[in-house]
Amino acid sequence: MSGTPEARPVSRRRLLTGGAVAAGGALAGGAAVAAAGRDGAPALTPVSTGSAVEPFHGARQAGVTTEPQAHAAFVALTLRPGVGRTELGRMLRLLTDDAARLTQGQPALADTEPELGQIPARLTVTFGFGPGLYRAAGVEDRRPGSLADLPPFKIDRLQPRWSGGDVLLQVCADDPVTVTHAQRVLIKDSRPFGTVRWVQQGFRRAAGAEPGRTQRNLFGQLDGTANPAAGAAADTVVWLPEGPPWLRDSTTLVVRRISMNLETWDLLGRPDREAAVGRRLDSGAPLTGTAEHDPPDFTATNDDGLTVMPDFSHVTRAHVTEDRLKILRRPYNYDGAPTAEGHADSGLIFASYQADIARQFLPLQRRLAERDLLNEWTTPIGSAVFAVPPGCDPGGWVGQDLLG
Amino acid sequence: MSGTPEARPVSRRRLLTGGAVAAGGALAGGAAVAAAGRDGAPALTPVSTGSAVEPFHGARQAGVTTEPQAHAAFVALTLRPGVGRTELGRMLRLLTDDAARLTQGQPALADTEPELGQIPARLTVTFGFGPGLYRAAGVEDRRPGSLADLPPFKIDRLQPRWSGGDVLLQVCADDPVTVTHAQRVLIKDSRPFGTVRWVQQGFRRAAGAEPGRTQRNLFGQLDGTANPAAGAAADTVVWLPEGPPWLRDSTTLVVRRISMNLETWDLLGRPDREAAVGRRLDSGAPLTGTAEHDPPDFTATNDDGLTVMPDFSHVTRAHVTEDRLKILRRPYNYDGAPTAEGHADSGLIFASYQADIARQFLPLQRRLAERDLLNEWTTPIGSAVFAVPPGCDPGGWVGQDLLG
Repeated sequence: MSGTPEARPVSRRRLLTGGAVAAGGALAGGAAVAAAGRDGAPALTPVSTGSAVEPFHGARQAGVTTEPQAHAAFVALTLRPGVGRTELGRMLRLLTDDAARLTQGQPALADTEPELGQIPARLTVTFGFGPGLYRAAGVEDRRPGSLADLPPFKIDRLQPRWSGGDVLLQVCADDPVTVTHAQRVLIKDSRPFGTVRWVQQGFRRAAGAEPGRTQRNLFGQLDGTANPAAGAAADTVVWLPEGPPWLRDSTTLVVRRISMNLETWDLLGRPDREAAVGRRLDSGAPLTGTAEHDPPDFTATNDDGLTVMPDFSHVTRAHVTEDRLKILRRPYNYDGAPTAEGHADSGLIFASYQADIARQFLPLQRRLAERDLLNEWTTPIGSAVFAVPPGCDPGGWVGQDLLG
Repeated sequence: MSGTPEARPVSRRRLLTGGAVAAGGALAGGAAVAAAGRDGAPALTPVSTGSAVEPFHGARQAGVTTEPQAHAAFVALTLRPGVGRTELGRMLRLLTDDAARLTQGQPALADTEPELGQIPARLTVTFGFGPGLYRAAGVEDRRPGSLADLPPFKIDRLQPRWSGGDVLLQVCADDPVTVTHAQRVLIKDSRPFGTVRWVQQGFRRAAGAEPGRTQRNLFGQLDGTANPAAGAAADTVVWLPEGPPWLRDSTTLVVRRISMNLETWDLLGRPDREAAVGRRLDSGAPLTGTAEHDPPDFTATNDDGLTVMPDFSHVTRAHVTEDRLKILRRPYNYDGAPTAEGHADSGLIFASYQADIARQFLPLQRRLAERDLLNEWTTPIGSAVFAVPPGCDPGGWVGQDLLG
């Protein structure tokens, strides 16, 4: 669970079974991954998409600063009446054990389909605690100060079926069968303690489809350009550096389901789209620049004396320069069944991590809710907040410092 | 669209942009693919998951004997009243052009998100014609003899929302964003001619996760072991070798949505599961053998004098030795949202190709419907049949020989 991605050493057997080259002539994929060796030097080791592993144990939970996997299931649970601190401890011991095994390509202890648990594909399981968990456990004094339902925004059209939750299980992997299997194991083992409130399944580009590139959402926009760079900046943005053991190395997660109206978006020409976003659709460059990561120049004006970056463009409204005010976006696309008339049910599972919701997320969200041209084509239909507690070492369990 | 998978030559630029190895040390995937070179000799060429291309044009449509991609959307359309032969010709000219471009990594002509059309990821678009299309076009005399709604089976609990359809668009790719984008482009261009009857989205293991292996369904069973071998056998099973131009090199497709009751399946022990299937769950070997592809021995008996292969096991009931009676299975898993109590909405989008539904699919399905232990845990909830007409050459369109 450390912040540094590191592939586990590759055994000869795994090389053979997950080998990059098949002799038969049919398509058979395998990925070559540049991973850090044990001495820290880059070592080129072939690892198949299926056998790549993310570490589970560590001071911080995985699945946050982990390079986003292709598939995700966000599962929110409602605690059953009577579930308190003791029962939560039992639940989290069990689920931590499941996650520790499944993420390393081993079946869970009570796995009824153990053969489906053998392909980790960079599986991560990240646990989140909603405000209700602190109430149920009688530990409200330990709740992170900024962890509370978000205030209503005038753009919201929230539906209970996509909102709230006492416990979040965020399951991500580069293989959709792996996600489905882990989701099922975790839900089964949660049943004595909670019911399923909602499940949101999402996707990004497949592993290896567009390596090293910022993702595009279903509007065709690059999404995530302004994310903090890895390393120290991400540390400042995401993780609490100090505090009592149940807070140090924790973060918070905001999950919002954003419906995207592709039908009306499609009616816009490219210049109008680019004005709404504040970036070129092809390169992702700000309208005042030529490359994706050029800083936008909000003072530049055109021949008419107007600023080149529209005042209400998404980039203008979302722009933050200080790391301590940034957020780490880790969104997934969703695509449900279209209507009979072919109107898409598409959008974004917006997921952002930040050390403090009140300091980082809320001011940004208020600016966007107040005036952001993109609001014309997007509607928040779900909202939930979770604390992401510290990770644990082997033998420990997630939430131990809070509930143990 | 030939039956032989063949990757297109890899340019230096594509090697660079989709390169198999990234220098940065972060995870970055790329696949090494053994493809047939121009002279027919195997040549090892690195192709990223994203840039791999399946040919579109040819005598036979792609997406049938194509090595199954990781993601699929099956889109069934109902033709609007008044749509006849002329309008179908317009629709299929348009959709063929869309498919020819998108599968090669180029945006469709009217693509409103062209940036999403640039990653082919082995995209195939396969067109199917339901019985209603032949009626609408007034060409019932050209309908394949075996193309008709399946007779009812006593195990069926069919729902209209998953059944029937006049036109099928089968969209498959190794990248889920590519499938979503192609699905949307094709549905938009279909709107003047048809409404969306149903969409079924499915998945298999990610590209490169388990190269060269038979897939497992969500019961954990290997699924597809009995598929005909590639080459001549698949030719006999799948493709019509002769007939008028609208039938030669065509096939038929049966799509059935099979709900799988994971809750009751989980109550079974492994011996009972293996008896129901007739195979070992780990290796997929028949109960009388040791390896997946060992032929089952239906005469072998145990100490009690009973046959080792149970009479009603799935393998016993489904067993076919003659190629002309086999089918080519190309199934995908589905996994919807679980209930509040955590009961899964999981199953299989069963898709089989065969030259003749009456000769190949129906006898097999009758045997399974009559007695197959697996019926206890599976329920067909959707059913549809389509002819898959021949492919087309550049400048032509799918369905031209039938409707032109």
